[in-house]
Amino acid sequence: MTQVIRSSAELREKVATWKRSGMLVGVVPTMGALHDGHMSLVRAARKQSDRVIVTIFVNPMQFNNSDDLAKYPRDEAHDLALLETEGVDVLFAPGVEEVYPAGFATKVSVSGVSEPLEGAFRPGHFDGVATVVTKLFGMTQAGRAFFGEKDWQQLQVVRRMVADLNIPVRIIGCPTIREEDGLAMSSRNVRLSADERACAPLLHAELQKAAEAIRAGTPAAAALAAAQEALSAAGFGPWDYLEMRSAETLQPLDTPCEPARLLAAVGLGAVRMIDNIAV
Amino acid sequence: MTQVIRSSAELREKVATWKRSGMLVGVVPTMGALHDGHMSLVRAARKQSDRVIVTIFVNPMQFNNSDDLAKYPRDEAHDLALLETEGVDVLFAPGVEEVYPAGFATKVSVSGVSEPLEGAFRPGHFDGVATVVTKLFGMTQAGRAFFGEKDWQQLQVVRRMVADLNIPVRIIGCPTIREEDGLAMSSRNVRLSADERACAPLLHAELQKAAEAIRAGTPAAAALAAAQEALSAAGFGPWDYLEMRSAETLQPLDTPCEPARLLAAVGLGAVRMIDNIAV
Repeated sequence: MTQVIRSSAELREKVATWKRSGMLVGVVPTMGALHDGHMSLVRAARKQSDRVIVTIFVNPMQFNNSDDLAKYPRDEAHDLALLETEGVDVLFAPGVEEVYPAGFATKVSVSGVSEPLEGAFRPGHFDGVATVVTKLFGMTQAGRAFFGEKDWQQLQVVRRMVADLNIPVRIIGCPTIREEDGLAMSSRNVRLSADERACAPLLHAELQKAAEAIRAGTPAAAALAAAQEALSAAGFGPWDYLEMRSAETLQPLDTPCEPARLLAAVGLGAVRMIDNIAV
Repeated sequence: MTQVIRSSAELREKVATWKRSGMLVGVVPTMGALHDGHMSLVRAARKQSDRVIVTIFVNPMQFNNSDDLAKYPRDEAHDLALLETEGVDVLFAPGVEEVYPAGFATKVSVSGVSEPLEGAFRPGHFDGVATVVTKLFGMTQAGRAFFGEKDWQQLQVVRRMVADLNIPVRIIGCPTIREEDGLAMSSRNVRLSADERACAPLLHAELQKAAEAIRAGTPAAAALAAAQEALSAAGFGPWDYLEMRSAETLQPLDTPCEPARLLAAVGLGAVRMIDNIAV
């Protein structure tokens, strides 16, 4: 039976009883609209923790676009049913006023790794992520936290922040879960039309092709230009970015001389798609 | 026997053994150069915690003035001897590279309460305080933390930050400890000349006189103008501020209609003195 908790004071008491018994708490921070990608994080948490909290909070502070915030899918009953099947202990679903009460005035910001890519196209986004994740770590006092590699840059920002602020939590990155055709699972995929949905897997396919070419010695710029051309011809656009970057620092790379990642953000119809893969 | 620890990894292990036994950890964050003001915090921590950590770290991030940083008094051997007498369990004295290793990129900032007074005269100071205190709470995993009311605005900034980030620590504010003549104890007092030292207690005396006058109905502006005039005549200056403010939010107050505080920052010779009292 998954217990739904909405107040951080009640959560704190729950966690305190677990901690007194020496239990390791795992947390999976989400914005709800759960899919198999999230559930893979939940299963990892279940395996690596004694008690599992899934948080669902559509965090206004990390949306730079009010339309995206308004349209973000929400279905708590469905989410709860999914979490029940995985034996999650607590669904923590606080309201906005619980997370950001009157007088709230604190911001956590990470420079460097948060600045390019998503940071450049979504001003304030990673401040919102870093702040709410710090808060969720405080509220849940989790010893382990599970994040998807789908949001690769977010994972690196969270790792940096946790190291920098000495937060006593271990960050576990989990591989992107894909549909059979390769499309990375995302809560925003439900907003794709049938035609767009049919076209969407090409993003992953072209990223793979580019990564293979780069590994085979093709200059990254040429491989990525070819991918962009193919995707644009198939109806993707406008482009925010399609780049090879250092996997950890997200700094630009011309050659994959250190662990590298291809990262893309591009429109498809009304949806902004993101994806990334290792080179 | 007070154990000196310099690495956060070693501290984490130490704290983990305490936590497994259900012990409550208290922390007193300091910049060293300990005096009776600090020791009153240590004694409060000793009473209210099972284990006590005193941290000594002269935090470069909170100094906006490199000269003040260079001249800040340091005497770890003397500090350690004092802490031994009070039965402190751990002196945590990390180096700068332990607290801010290469690649460090995260900042905690508090708006509102941190902006006027010290915030206006020491740009970046409270970002440095909020960031290092968040780090020290992560490193020590303390359940209680003890701060002096001498740095009144700092205490309010830390309270705001802890509430906002849901850090699981209780903040305990402890009264300012004064010399017999009323001078608030401060590590910077050693930098006063004999003449300045003789003059210094007038700051507290004039604050008291102004508070009494305000409580008796004198308009705050008049009471503070009289105090400033008397202090300037005695050699205090230049003035950063001498104001009545809301005790919690530090917003300006004309009348003490809510808990109010008089706060002063003023030069005396080469030293910048701060003090504050309740109205």
